[in-house]
Amino acid sequence: MRLILIGFGAVGRGFAEILRDKTNNLRAKYGFEASIVGVVTATRGSLYCAAGLDIPALLTAAKAGSFASYPAGAGLQRDLSAADMITPGAADALLELSPTNLETAQPALATCYRALDAGMHLALANKGPVALRYADLQARAAANGVQMRCEATVMAGTPTMQLAQEALAGCQITGARGILNGTTNYILTQMESGENYRAALEKAQKLGYAEADPSGDVDGWDAAGKLLILANALFGSRLTMGDLQVSGIGGLSADDISRAREQNQRYKLIAQASPSGGTVEAMRLPTTDPLASVAGTTNAITLETDLLGAVTLIGAGAGSHETGAALLADLLAIHRCQCNQTGASA
Amino acid sequence: MRLILIGFGAVGRGFAEILRDKTNNLRAKYGFEASIVGVVTATRGSLYCAAGLDIPALLTAAKAGSFASYPAGAGLQRDLSAADMITPGAADALLELSPTNLETAQPALATCYRALDAGMHLALANKGPVALRYADLQARAAANGVQMRCEATVMAGTPTMQLAQEALAGCQITGARGILNGTTNYILTQMESGENYRAALEKAQKLGYAEADPSGDVDGWDAAGKLLILANALFGSRLTMGDLQVSGIGGLSADDISRAREQNQRYKLIAQASPSGGTVEAMRLPTTDPLASVAGTTNAITLETDLLGAVTLIGAGAGSHETGAALLADLLAIHRCQCNQTGASA
Repeated sequence: MRLILIGFGAVGRGFAEILRDKTNNLRAKYGFEASIVGVVTATRGSLYCAAGLDIPALLTAAKAGSFASYPAGAGLQRDLSAADMITPGAADALLELSPTNLETAQPALATCYRALDAGMHLALANKGPVALRYADLQARAAANGVQMRCEATVMAGTPTMQLAQEALAGCQITGARGILNGTTNYILTQMESGENYRAALEKAQKLGYAEADPSGDVDGWDAAGKLLILANALFGSRLTMGDLQVSGIGGLSADDISRAREQNQRYKLIAQASPSGGTVEAMRLPTTDPLASVAGTTNAITLETDLLGAVTLIGAGAGSHETGAALLADLLAIHRCQCNQTGASA
Repeated sequence: MRLILIGFGAVGRGFAEILRDKTNNLRAKYGFEASIVGVVTATRGSLYCAAGLDIPALLTAAKAGSFASYPAGAGLQRDLSAADMITPGAADALLELSPTNLETAQPALATCYRALDAGMHLALANKGPVALRYADLQARAAANGVQMRCEATVMAGTPTMQLAQEALAGCQITGARGILNGTTNYILTQMESGENYRAALEKAQKLGYAEADPSGDVDGWDAAGKLLILANALFGSRLTMGDLQVSGIGGLSADDISRAREQNQRYKLIAQASPSGGTVEAMRLPTTDPLASVAGTTNAITLETDLLGAVTLIGAGAGSHETGAALLADLLAIHRCQCNQTGASA
């Protein structure tokens, strides 16, 4: 499977490292072989080689800050734009790993359509296109006889999408609620041990969990983007941000948290969706709820089903290898079912 | 997909009810159509009709206690043995739902080999054959170009096997530990609220969770059987009961449990496996462990992976529809990937 990567930040490099380290294992266990033929970045330049790029050299050049230092060789093309690189036959799958834009999803959305129309499978870590245009992308993939998958966009490699769409096939999922943002869960966990909001946020920023402007996390927008993806994937809805009620954790005080604790409850930023809409809000959960015991940056989701009742999945929600693992899982799912798209995209 | 069911107890009837109720949904969503062509039971007789049996009539006859009351019709054969019914072309898949025997796995084991050699896919709710002969059955399935799946044998329809084998494909699983027996977890949860062992066991028996002779559950053997299946499926091991150290919850007093509680710990019957062996034993877990908060008859498993760290799945561990859902999920997985067995069986 020949791959083009759009974006080569922490997730792209994490994925490339996994591919480098697991080559033999993936061939032996699944008969799966993949090469990176193209990489397009905003700041490091771009590389394309139909015969496959050398992953160690790619990682070295990325670390040095520019693909200019990637060694010259037969068939190597430098500085193609995404649009010029994405042509029929140039690759088998495109990995869209550029930064998330939840307002327009551009320029990634145009890149995704282009790849699907060029007959490439699509795997995303970028939330924008699937948060805003899930149904359209899925339809375009089906029309082109390829798959569109986005395991990496929700709970990193913790396999939320495969759980809901494949492992629970046959069940009707009637609702979903989860802890989809690790930064806010870390802050709340710190506050449980007595810290105030300000100090907990500063610690999260120091550890690299929260950005300098933390609003995307603490105001609930990151969780909302993931919730849109889930809702549209699980329920076949066409919800938009306007259909969600979104609030964050900024209003919570150390007092609120300790009062909840006295009543055997914990505050969690819960994203929940049903076929008709969704909310992101700080909620008090009884400590007996599996979501209540999820601590630190860990994520979790509970799916309500007709046949099984509640099914809860708990795991990592971020990290370069954790997210790279999701991209690999998507590619392995495509590899496994390449001859039968119906089941995987239903 | 034409199905033969061996056994038509609570699980078989639950599966048949799901198939009856979801016919249109499964056709529309997955292009999946299935009919029950044969049922073999120990006490109700057996039925075979190549054109498909009528599920409502089958359920009515089963409820009446004998298939003798199933209406006569063209092509209907009564009272065939399993061996006579399982011939090449008689069905596409066999569901082995007869009672578990963890000593010899017979007569189910012979039935399974016969079905695989007749070119039928195999889905089991009966733990015996996969606990004792997982690798052999998997090899026989591969040799015959069919799949052998057993989602229903561990945590009912909570998709443990699909999580480990498909959704986490690409990750190496280095260890597994879980709460695999709902009866003992119910008893321990009752003891947490102050009941003694004897009273909690009696309540479990009254509710139908524990049998009159509860030793299979409380001495750890049910959990051990499931652990063998998991270990052999996840690690490609060939462990036998002799490789496991098994103990139960009988030695625990209300005092032990309240002493643990004072130290923010809970006793759980934990089944854990690594590639080299496994144990089933009552262990004290810190209340921060996701497994510690699993209450009542609910089951759970934590898989340790190289790329994602710990991934925990929590859900139902028993029930006729919950287990029937696992059989349906296995059949849908076979349907999805019918043209590519490599991935699914790896």
